[in-house]
Amino acid sequence: MTSTGPENTPRPDVGRDIVWHPSAVSRDERWAAKHLAGVTVWFTGLSGSGKSTISNEVGKLLVAGGRAVYLLDGDNLRFGLNGDLGFDRASREENVRRVGEVARLMADAGLAVLVPVISPYRAGRDRVREIHEAAGLRFVEVFVDTPIEECEQRDPKGLYAKARAGELKGFTGIDDPYEPPVAPELILATSTGRPADLASQVVDLLG
Amino acid sequence: MTSTGPENTPRPDVGRDIVWHPSAVSRDERWAAKHLAGVTVWFTGLSGSGKSTISNEVGKLLVAGGRAVYLLDGDNLRFGLNGDLGFDRASREENVRRVGEVARLMADAGLAVLVPVISPYRAGRDRVREIHEAAGLRFVEVFVDTPIEECEQRDPKGLYAKARAGELKGFTGIDDPYEPPVAPELILATSTGRPADLASQVVDLLG
Repeated sequence: MTSTGPENTPRPDVGRDIVWHPSAVSRDERWAAKHLAGVTVWFTGLSGSGKSTISNEVGKLLVAGGRAVYLLDGDNLRFGLNGDLGFDRASREENVRRVGEVARLMADAGLAVLVPVISPYRAGRDRVREIHEAAGLRFVEVFVDTPIEECEQRDPKGLYAKARAGELKGFTGIDDPYEPPVAPELILATSTGRPADLASQVVDLLG
Repeated sequence: MTSTGPENTPRPDVGRDIVWHPSAVSRDERWAAKHLAGVTVWFTGLSGSGKSTISNEVGKLLVAGGRAVYLLDGDNLRFGLNGDLGFDRASREENVRRVGEVARLMADAGLAVLVPVISPYRAGRDRVREIHEAAGLRFVEVFVDTPIEECEQRDPKGLYAKARAGELKGFTGIDDPYEPPVAPELILATSTGRPADLASQVVDLLG
């Protein structure tokens, strides 16, 4: 029944006399009720690298295997939870922070949470890993390592063209940095296989 | 695989050329994989009214019945996702908005989401209902209708005493309004039964 973890370790700075409400049902009990196994699979990479495509393929495979799955798409969340955020650095960091918090909650709920989100800054991704691991939850970072030349050539949404034309400012890989992961659980080079094949590598890793 | 709903109806004002990513797996397919049935049960009421206690009892009953359940406690979220928010009116509205968005995502994932959160303003709760219903998701509003006199007498966290002493400003029911629901799916009067009995009423309603 935990809604975030670890239990009973409230942040000291939350203020306003908010107390942590311990849960009546443990994570183990909740998961056992439906044979669930929560995990967050975080797909990071440039725009157009194939994160959404691959994570959707992973979702298909996992659902076919009878798992409880949810795809938490970074772009789609901007139509709801993160609709109030812009694209400056602080907003992008807040975007990743919130997506990470929601992923943690969903993993704690017992879902296999698939998260395709550019998440360009290493510190932000590492923080998401930390909150998962502090809560005893598995976090798997998948680096979709498509070279920018290829992303720009594909340009499925026409965003690179707009960034090159100066119509989009602060675009990752053009005039804003992308910091690749140092030790991701998996690196996928999209030149080495079709999305379904790459997705199988992720599913194999999850076991 | 939908991460928010309805699909393919992006908000026109989201800007920055963000496009909605349609999902490869439908909600029906995701739910069927694990015999899931998403629903949000929203417990509103004063501080100390019994929301957390009753929702925990509901969680126990549902887990015992083999359902996938998650308790999204409004206070607990302030240690994570909503740790950046204060207690002025705008912050409280943003708090409820985010909790509502996360509940919708989790209900879409197929969970029975139990949400004890004061959520004092009617418009905020109605907006949460709207985003659920627009996404074809069931939303059940439970009004934990404990009179303020009783809440203040219980005062499990000592908050009413602090509010009366002027140490907490803008406290719901003291110097900030609580707007009761007009047409909740269920009204629970905590004087009429023990938490476990009241929880049974919620479970019966869920069917």
